[in-house]
Amino acid sequence: MSQIKIKVEHINPFVTSTIETFRKMVGLEAKPGKLIIKQGNADDYDISGIIGISGGAKGMVSLSFPKETAIKVTNKFIGASSADVTDDTIDAIGELANIVAGYAKKGLGEFNITISLPSVITGSNHRIKEPKDVFSFIVPFETELGGFHLAVSLKSVE
Amino acid sequence: MSQIKIKVEHINPFVTSTIETFRKMVGLEAKPGKLIIKQGNADDYDISGIIGISGGAKGMVSLSFPKETAIKVTNKFIGASSADVTDDTIDAIGELANIVAGYAKKGLGEFNITISLPSVITGSNHRIKEPKDVFSFIVPFETELGGFHLAVSLKSVE
Repeated sequence: MSQIKIKVEHINPFVTSTIETFRKMVGLEAKPGKLIIKQGNADDYDISGIIGISGGAKGMVSLSFPKETAIKVTNKFIGASSADVTDDTIDAIGELANIVAGYAKKGLGEFNITISLPSVITGSNHRIKEPKDVFSFIVPFETELGGFHLAVSLKSVE
Repeated sequence: MSQIKIKVEHINPFVTSTIETFRKMVGLEAKPGKLIIKQGNADDYDISGIIGISGGAKGMVSLSFPKETAIKVTNKFIGASSADVTDDTIDAIGELANIVAGYAKKGLGEFNITISLPSVITGSNHRIKEPKDVFSFIVPFETELGGFHLAVSLKSVE
């Protein structure tokens, strides 16, 4: 397989997948904001679902939420009414990352990618940093339950 | 491919790989402590290198360090003398996670796994949680520069 250069077009499957996942699975309209190409810095968040990509392209996808948004999104997703972060919140955020990466995979058929299991990072103001030589971007999303962001790092494999 | 059950024996390639990586790449003896099967809880750490696994088995591998240990290990790894966390620390911890997962891959040939790119999580007292239905374990390591831990979640794919 010859190497396919990662281009801005490869961002679309992730953005579309996030919109679809929130619409179909959570019942929430997630409006994408302006794409930010990562330059080493990242916003701070409280809860992140993260999942690895490998195959014809390698990388990592994460969905990061402020605590309050994570709780509200989880409540809507699973039909609960928690006032705090629980095991359900952790499971829900991991599952959302998993679905987003799974949908995006279909839109990136040329890379024949596979995805790992998700992990969920908790901790106030944690940051997730990608290798510096890799194409990385963040898309902020707004919903009626608060904002979150999608971060992707992606590199095609020779 | 028929499903291979994940067994305790599959832990060994990760432990061996961590020992070899620290010995060969950092010049540091890392002594493994008692394996802990994860039950939802995890220790808090400051800097973690995390990398996804997919293919015939799916999961996530992370190496988590207290801040002081991460700085000292990085200084020894790259021949520096930083007193604080810098971009070099982030790069070094990501690279160590990458090497550990890459070595472990060879010892898990039956699963034909591939690895993602590493990401590095920073933030005091963050936690990394795996899906609850997956075999997850932690191995604490001691070195003369301080302790760290290896965490792995792994699930064979049908």
